[in-house]
Amino acid sequence: MTIQTEQLAQTLHRVRQTHPVVHALTNWVTAGDVANALHAIGARPIMASALEEVEEIVSRADVFVINVGTPDPLRIKAMLSAGYCANRLGRPVILDPVGVGASRFRMDSVQTILSALRIAVIRGNRAEIGALAGTGGQLRGIDSVQEPPDIHAAAKTLSQKTGAVIAVSGAQDLVVKGEMIVSVENGHPMMGQVTGMGCMLTAVIAAFAVVEPDPMVAAVAAMAFFGLAGELAVQQAKGPGSFRINLLDALYAMTPEELKAGAKLKD
Amino acid sequence: MTIQTEQLAQTLHRVRQTHPVVHALTNWVTAGDVANALHAIGARPIMASALEEVEEIVSRADVFVINVGTPDPLRIKAMLSAGYCANRLGRPVILDPVGVGASRFRMDSVQTILSALRIAVIRGNRAEIGALAGTGGQLRGIDSVQEPPDIHAAAKTLSQKTGAVIAVSGAQDLVVKGEMIVSVENGHPMMGQVTGMGCMLTAVIAAFAVVEPDPMVAAVAAMAFFGLAGELAVQQAKGPGSFRINLLDALYAMTPEELKAGAKLKD
Amino acid sequence: MTIQTEQLAQTLHRVRQTHPVVHALTNWVTAGDVANALHAIGARPIMASALEEVEEIVSRADVFVINVGTPDPLRIKAMLSAGYCANRLGRPVILDPVGVGASRFRMDSVQTILSALRIAVIRGNRAEIGALAGTGGQLRGIDSVQEPPDIHAAAKTLSQKTGAVIAVSGAQDLVVKGEMIVSVENGHPMMGQVTGMGCMLTAVIAAFAVVEPDPMVAAVAAMAFFGLAGELAVQQAKGPGSFRINLLDALYAMTPEELKAGAKLKD
Repeated sequence: MTIQTEQLAQTLHRVRQTHPVVHALTNWVTAGDVANALHAIGARPIMASALEEVEEIVSRADVFVINVGTPDPLRIKAMLSAGYCANRLGRPVILDPVGVGASRFRMDSVQTILSALRIAVIRGNRAEIGALAGTGGQLRGIDSVQEPPDIHAAAKTLSQKTGAVIAVSGAQDLVVKGEMIVSVENGHPMMGQVTGMGCMLTAVIAAFAVVEPDPMVAAVAAMAFFGLAGELAVQQAKGPGSFRINLLDALYAMTPEELKAGAKLKD
Repeated sequence: MTIQTEQLAQTLHRVRQTHPVVHALTNWVTAGDVANALHAIGARPIMASALEEVEEIVSRADVFVINVGTPDPLRIKAMLSAGYCANRLGRPVILDPVGVGASRFRMDSVQTILSALRIAVIRGNRAEIGALAGTGGQLRGIDSVQEPPDIHAAAKTLSQKTGAVIAVSGAQDLVVKGEMIVSVENGHPMMGQVTGMGCMLTAVIAAFAVVEPDPMVAAVAAMAFFGLAGELAVQQAKGPGSFRINLLDALYAMTPEELKAGAKLKD
Repeated sequence: MTIQTEQLAQTLHRVRQTHPVVHALTNWVTAGDVANALHAIGARPIMASALEEVEEIVSRADVFVINVGTPDPLRIKAMLSAGYCANRLGRPVILDPVGVGASRFRMDSVQTILSALRIAVIRGNRAEIGALAGTGGQLRGIDSVQEPPDIHAAAKTLSQKTGAVIAVSGAQDLVVKGEMIVSVENGHPMMGQVTGMGCMLTAVIAAFAVVEPDPMVAAVAAMAFFGLAGELAVQQAKGPGSFRINLLDALYAMTPEELKAGAKLKD
């Protein structure tokens, strides 16, 4: 499968034109960052998490994001309830298995979600994808320390088990669906020094998946876009504080033409 | 009713002098933004939300903010409990009906709050005020998309039903109390690209309502102040990231004289 | 006890080398700020708060932070559960008694924590430490207004009661253990205009306590480091917005040599 950079540019353009509504049931550490990233690209966030309203909210949204950071049993229940509704209505569901290797509770919760719901894209770092694929990958803190020996194999296994596109963040991003692999070489190491980068990227993938029916293309476009924004952001940054601000500015200001010119894909 | 810009300047001056304590039972997406906005103007935030302490906390605060973003039944119960206490003690209660049109649960919760408590100011966007007034205004995401046909009529109706001052944010802000209408023409479209602007504005109105006994004047002063800060913030901004930072700086640095000179009111 | 500035520099150096994993059960207002501060110094945050996973998470972390802002009964239970586990495994436990004087519920919760757990460092402002020591210190809002008459005596009393190092933030920081007192004269008044400074400092102390076995030295090092970052941050700041960004940049960029040269300790 060859994805043209022109497709990425068109996807970004359509997000900016159509203002997709993204319902994110996301952790409370980075919820503000996620909302700001969505606003910056022209999408409209809504963060409802109560069982009493998630079905109604998701039915008015264009896509549903499940982010399992700061999980608790009630939240997991709300995720399942809204996720069923999204599946029934044909809205894409995007999963971020934050820290899935860090506790039995997270692993069980994510496994329950995966067996109950049809997921369009799973976005995680190498340790999270490795842990979910059952090929190792341990977590210390919320970031990957111990990575699985063969991330390509882990992502492929997980894609086959779940039917989802697997988007793996790292020094080199990978997007995997069955036998197809695209690697995205945008990004900057500074992105590892800031909280919420992964959560923001997952939400951006969700917004892109509203306007691009092939979730593989949507994930590649979002990862190239987000990584390129990181490259632009670092140019004027003095550290992770100014980097994070510049990133939001870059998410807002980057044109489809700049994305087309700057995206670095490799089949 | 004619409000003099000199009154606005004096209100800002008094906030800076007296450091009002603002108890905000606010959503967890923008709680940090709200706290930072309050700190920037010299107020002191406290964000307690547990039933076990909200009455005691509100009794030591100068004003109580109810923000129904990310609602759940326990939070609504705590809002009512603290709200009764604030009413009994004569502290103003300010309501932000975030996303009230987005779910039956939010609408019911806000209606319960409105029938149980005496509210000094309700601050919302056009869709929220329209939905509450029962004159239409649908929500997609957390921002207004479908606005009510006649926002003046909607705000007037809501003010008459509740006795509250209605502060409506938008391209042109409106402050309505019974038959009185003041419009505030400060602000910048960039404010719609950043999360938490409405929540921050509501909290600023609350701080102003501590030092200015007429909630109509307090709301007009806060909206002119906040909108003017937005105008100043955008001058050096490259996007919503730097805009948000500049806004906090402007909230902190703006002098009463600058507010007096920059406020754009229209009766 | 004389602490050499060379020790502070070495402690910072070791944090940057070893990337300590900090489990913070912290309030949702400033959780993002805490995570960003930890990332900026090279530590790895994890913010789990559910009873279902805190023991497992804390057992994989290097240190445990209890921050009682936005408390509720379930969170307090999770703090105790994770705290026992940390104590059993010999991981340091750091306590931030946010707003402890603001409600009976917070005071009771903190007292329960103090009687159940062995705490290495308690970090609070003057009012919080005074309230905990039982020598007065009332809170209005989340910041100290009424300070205890003799903060040295209050900190000494609290240290003797708990066995913990007491780190008191203020215009002049104090670090007290039994009869030992070190004062740290770094910092800037702007730090009082920004939300989450105390929470961030507590987390930085926790990261330092992983690599420096003497919690007195760790607390002094962290307070000098954080205060000096504040001094650097204010130089280019136009207000609390840009100050907060510059602070994260300074936490990231400051070298051990700069800390050694800039630390202002007084026995």
